[in-house]
Amino acid sequence: MPRLVDHDERRRQITGAARRVVARDGLEAATFQAVAAEAGVSVRLVQYYFGNKEGLLLATHRAVIEDAAARFGGGPGQRPAGGPRDVLRGILAALLPLDAERRADAVVLAAFHAAALTGSTVEARAMLGAPRALVDVVAALLLGARPPGGDTQDPAEDPAEDDRAGTALDAELVLATAAGLVQGVLAGHYTPDAALALADHLLDRVLGPVSPSSSASAS
Amino acid sequence: MPRLVDHDERRRQITGAARRVVARDGLEAATFQAVAAEAGVSVRLVQYYFGNKEGLLLATHRAVIEDAAARFGGGPGQRPAGGPRDVLRGILAALLPLDAERRADAVVLAAFHAAALTGSTVEARAMLGAPRALVDVVAALLLGARPPGGDTQDPAEDPAEDDRAGTALDAELVLATAAGLVQGVLAGHYTPDAALALADHLLDRVLGPVSPSSSASAS
Repeated sequence: MPRLVDHDERRRQITGAARRVVARDGLEAATFQAVAAEAGVSVRLVQYYFGNKEGLLLATHRAVIEDAAARFGGGPGQRPAGGPRDVLRGILAALLPLDAERRADAVVLAAFHAAALTGSTVEARAMLGAPRALVDVVAALLLGARPPGGDTQDPAEDPAEDDRAGTALDAELVLATAAGLVQGVLAGHYTPDAALALADHLLDRVLGPVSPSSSASAS
Repeated sequence: MPRLVDHDERRRQITGAARRVVARDGLEAATFQAVAAEAGVSVRLVQYYFGNKEGLLLATHRAVIEDAAARFGGGPGQRPAGGPRDVLRGILAALLPLDAERRADAVVLAAFHAAALTGSTVEARAMLGAPRALVDVVAALLLGARPPGGDTQDPAEDPAEDDRAGTALDAELVLATAAGLVQGVLAGHYTPDAALALADHLLDRVLGPVSPSSSASAS
């Protein structure tokens, strides 16, 4: 029984092993036995920390989400350098499976997504739920990145009112497209580079194309 | 042993049962026994038609794809009534899980997608592959729906050259967003109505907002 170990670190060691098992062999392969073997610990230790298989899977899912959030700064409080358009591009790049680690995480999330839909492994309610906070972050960045009375707006409409409603839809659109791009990269429909090019094209469509005068002064 | 039956119909009866089992309980639940019981036939009959489990699953996947293609007319040859924008909206609506049948099919596809990524049940190569034909259909419709020198183009660029390259990206963007919207509806992030509103917003962003003068004359 563990006494002098860092419990958080031990939990991360086990959820990290579970992520590798799910990414490699699918969610149904993530038994206590397989995860314990992958982590190099005893089955009893996995039980000690997570109780049952659902507890282990929920903790594994949460670990993936927390890493993704950490990758793009996490919230409105922590804003990386650059103008809003750069920050948006950074968020899209952080969401896409552009390297082995992000790809493995995206495979794990797709496995949880499919399992939650049929209720075969974990309850959908425990895991799914709109990432509202992310929509709000993206909407705030879009408002900041859009030039006043931007080029794609109809000049006859009231810009202030229309911007706000349109921006909420744009933020949902950006995130829905990001989800579709993730799926397409995983399935081999796009290369990572092609997905990034589509993400840039989406920003052009939503914000208007980059022009030398506006992009430099955006921040 | 079947002698006087319609073999295609019998195969559809069995793949139909497999679709219900997968939509309800997940891909790993689709054993010969479970599918035979759901279809009300013997296990031997399922074996007779599909050989092994992979054969059954591939045929099940193909049946879902064929139904989806039939839902939106399937190809450039069969074009429904209406202008290109209406046809595009029809394709997006056909792809979204807006009723119980399309929802069940989308759950089945998500299950196959996740399984193919880990190689746990079926080979990814056998199932995944870019729906290039669909991209071409959408690109052709976008070219037709866009007013000459459309409102979102920079007037300083060469419109003909730029339209064609931009339209290919737009078609990919429309389909990537559709995939993301499907996932969002299944996960409960959007209602079907909200997903349709986002699809309309996407068409506005790509084609420019509907105006009374251009929408009526588009076909």
